[in-house]
Amino acid sequence: MTYRSALIVGTGPGLSASLARLFARNGIAVSVAARNTAKLAELCAETGAAAFACDSTDPAAVAGLFAAVDARQGAPDVVVYNASNRTRGPVVDLDPADVQRAIAVSAFGAFLVAQQAARRMLKEGTGAILLSGATAGVKGFANSSSFAMGKFALRGLAQSMAREMSPQGVHVAHFVIDGGIRSAARPVPNEAPDSLLDPDAIAETYWHVMHQHRSAWSWEVEVRPWVEKF
Amino acid sequence: MTYRSALIVGTGPGLSASLARLFARNGIAVSVAARNTAKLAELCAETGAAAFACDSTDPAAVAGLFAAVDARQGAPDVVVYNASNRTRGPVVDLDPADVQRAIAVSAFGAFLVAQQAARRMLKEGTGAILLSGATAGVKGFANSSSFAMGKFALRGLAQSMAREMSPQGVHVAHFVIDGGIRSAARPVPNEAPDSLLDPDAIAETYWHVMHQHRSAWSWEVEVRPWVEKF
Amino acid sequence: MTYRSALIVGTGPGLSASLARLFARNGIAVSVAARNTAKLAELCAETGAAAFACDSTDPAAVAGLFAAVDARQGAPDVVVYNASNRTRGPVVDLDPADVQRAIAVSAFGAFLVAQQAARRMLKEGTGAILLSGATAGVKGFANSSSFAMGKFALRGLAQSMAREMSPQGVHVAHFVIDGGIRSAARPVPNEAPDSLLDPDAIAETYWHVMHQHRSAWSWEVEVRPWVEKF
Amino acid sequence: MTYRSALIVGTGPGLSASLARLFARNGIAVSVAARNTAKLAELCAETGAAAFACDSTDPAAVAGLFAAVDARQGAPDVVVYNASNRTRGPVVDLDPADVQRAIAVSAFGAFLVAQQAARRMLKEGTGAILLSGATAGVKGFANSSSFAMGKFALRGLAQSMAREMSPQGVHVAHFVIDGGIRSAARPVPNEAPDSLLDPDAIAETYWHVMHQHRSAWSWEVEVRPWVEKF
Repeated sequence: MTYRSALIVGTGPGLSASLARLFARNGIAVSVAARNTAKLAELCAETGAAAFACDSTDPAAVAGLFAAVDARQGAPDVVVYNASNRTRGPVVDLDPADVQRAIAVSAFGAFLVAQQAARRMLKEGTGAILLSGATAGVKGFANSSSFAMGKFALRGLAQSMAREMSPQGVHVAHFVIDGGIRSAARPVPNEAPDSLLDPDAIAETYWHVMHQHRSAWSWEVEVRPWVEKF
Repeated sequence: MTYRSALIVGTGPGLSASLARLFARNGIAVSVAARNTAKLAELCAETGAAAFACDSTDPAAVAGLFAAVDARQGAPDVVVYNASNRTRGPVVDLDPADVQRAIAVSAFGAFLVAQQAARRMLKEGTGAILLSGATAGVKGFANSSSFAMGKFALRGLAQSMAREMSPQGVHVAHFVIDGGIRSAARPVPNEAPDSLLDPDAIAETYWHVMHQHRSAWSWEVEVRPWVEKF
Repeated sequence: MTYRSALIVGTGPGLSASLARLFARNGIAVSVAARNTAKLAELCAETGAAAFACDSTDPAAVAGLFAAVDARQGAPDVVVYNASNRTRGPVVDLDPADVQRAIAVSAFGAFLVAQQAARRMLKEGTGAILLSGATAGVKGFANSSSFAMGKFALRGLAQSMAREMSPQGVHVAHFVIDGGIRSAARPVPNEAPDSLLDPDAIAETYWHVMHQHRSAWSWEVEVRPWVEKF
Repeated sequence: MTYRSALIVGTGPGLSASLARLFARNGIAVSVAARNTAKLAELCAETGAAAFACDSTDPAAVAGLFAAVDARQGAPDVVVYNASNRTRGPVVDLDPADVQRAIAVSAFGAFLVAQQAARRMLKEGTGAILLSGATAGVKGFANSSSFAMGKFALRGLAQSMAREMSPQGVHVAHFVIDGGIRSAARPVPNEAPDSLLDPDAIAETYWHVMHQHRSAWSWEVEVRPWVEKF
């Protein structure tokens, strides 16, 4: 499988940038989408990526994003959803509007993006949809109910779509990122080397999965630092 | 634990009615809430329950529901969430508005109801919140992505709340109902006895769980017909 | 379902005794089996149970045990397997003979007992086989590989047998006991009430499961103290 | 991580050979071990591998195997366990000796091999132990209890060892191979391309996992054909 057109939605702590660089380095045209594109100028300059402002929870906005990407670089054959949102605290203290927003960004937006991706990929009978999950998607922690709801829902979407679309040639995969991701704002402590996930290392595993032979596809892969408790 | 005031939200194929009868038979005052209360008159006459019209996805409506129940029968010490919603079909064919509604009814409404319940129960340091899940909450089927998203999210909520509130004395439990439920509209085939879940039998398991000694609580219980494939 | 003849194999910290008392109180004839029956005299006097010495990892001994129970009280219609064994420590330090023994007691013995039980129950098209698992059966902890192997294997046996025998009328269930069990040797700390599982409380859940209506059977139930981290 | 010395235990339908070729092609010295080495001559000629006869369930034989590999090519820094065994049929029909053998080959042998591997790798603070599982390790099928017991136990071992040894620098990973593997004896049907796992494709995923950066390790990866039901 050779990919030509990538779309990465959401910018977390570095993973989207690592993926954009890896894709660009391998000759794949890249678009990145985020609510706020102000911070993406440098990445775009470096990788040749285009940045699109998009609220991933708005169906029309997501449809427009895909149309723009189609026009720029051809229909995307690899789409990554990295956006998420949460509100922390005991259930009794949460503002329902925040919870609704958290579920919308973490899960409903993923549905909208995956639906647009699927419409394009099913026509070709090929492509990859990669959904970035978290430990919160397999374990619901105390004081983290909104994140649990969003990430569990994302995992349900991924598993349902994997069952539905794999036999049609589209590879849907869910990644359980278990641990903090290293970034400029969150450096790795000197006394604990490699104790935070290196976003380039995560990107290597996404790259592997999107290139697996279709006789041996993974639908879910967990990654965590060697020293992480689990 | 002796319960005095029950609230059952959502009316599925019979489980809510079975619970209402079981609760009433054991001297618990019961309220039932649904979007449409037209069909609840007979059950209310039989059990002495009050019926309240309520859209469980509306924060203000849910707050109002609990206030009304408080006034009628005292703050509920056992609350059941039975509502769910789905839209079937391939991902590419779904209407985003339907998907949003499905997630809202199956999961966000459960959050709203559980939040109100928690506020009352944590004050007393006791109570039970019982969430009705489905196989779709542990396995995402093809052509069922909206149901998977809603029911996975519900399970994430339940697990997060169980971790958060069990040590404060509130028992949160999630039930995986794996199979069809027998009803007037869906009778058990003569040639396959007990091949659909009897709602009275499910209610017995809810009853057991809500009465477990706190040294041996279950947070999740699966129930399925003896002949169901799994 | 009315049970008449029970066999409980293995004596852990109190659960077997609680089950024996609960069964006897409800008119079920009880036999208990253990490698060493010296400590069972009091329980037998109290409950009318018979005690049999049996190495549950020896096929001939297990066959003999069932024959003796058949003769005493009729073929058992409810059989509980409580035996387990482990050796703790880092993988590199374990004696292979101890590991082999741990797997044999926790899992192979369960197979032998369940096989004999199944032969009797399938003839009647009814009965219950209840297997006592542990958190180690769903989570493999560090320095606990032998226990993980034994308890994972037990869970695999339980799930396979549930799929195989449920449609033939025999209820196979696996219990995940997550936490320490209160006993004379391990009393509940005063400052942490109900922080250890009460064996009578666990027994109540076994009792519920073995009496579930066959349209709504559980194959696995988890129990843990309200304050237990999970 | 650059590997120099590989040991592959057990020869299934092609995966061991694919791994041996992949390792040899990348400059890693390879030994393969099996109960019967008669069929390994061609592979050894092709890859320069040495073949050792070894019953992996015999502690002394496994210790001897590692000593021989140490002497030939240095202590192995990547060890794969591929052996498994089962006996099919309803629980009531199985011969206990066959069940015992199945558990021994699938799980106890893996322990013996992993223990020897761990002793060598922990000294270096590096290395990879790769355990080949099956769907039977996460789902216990009817009429397959011995395979469920062995493969569940293997998964418990893998998870326990991953928790124990990852923080010491040794990467332990479990692979859930979900589907049949293509071989000369089991060719892929023309009408269902890539419907059986290609052993070279599986080997690529093993290779990826053993080369993951330690900040982003997977402990378990599932692989299945695109068209496989799950």
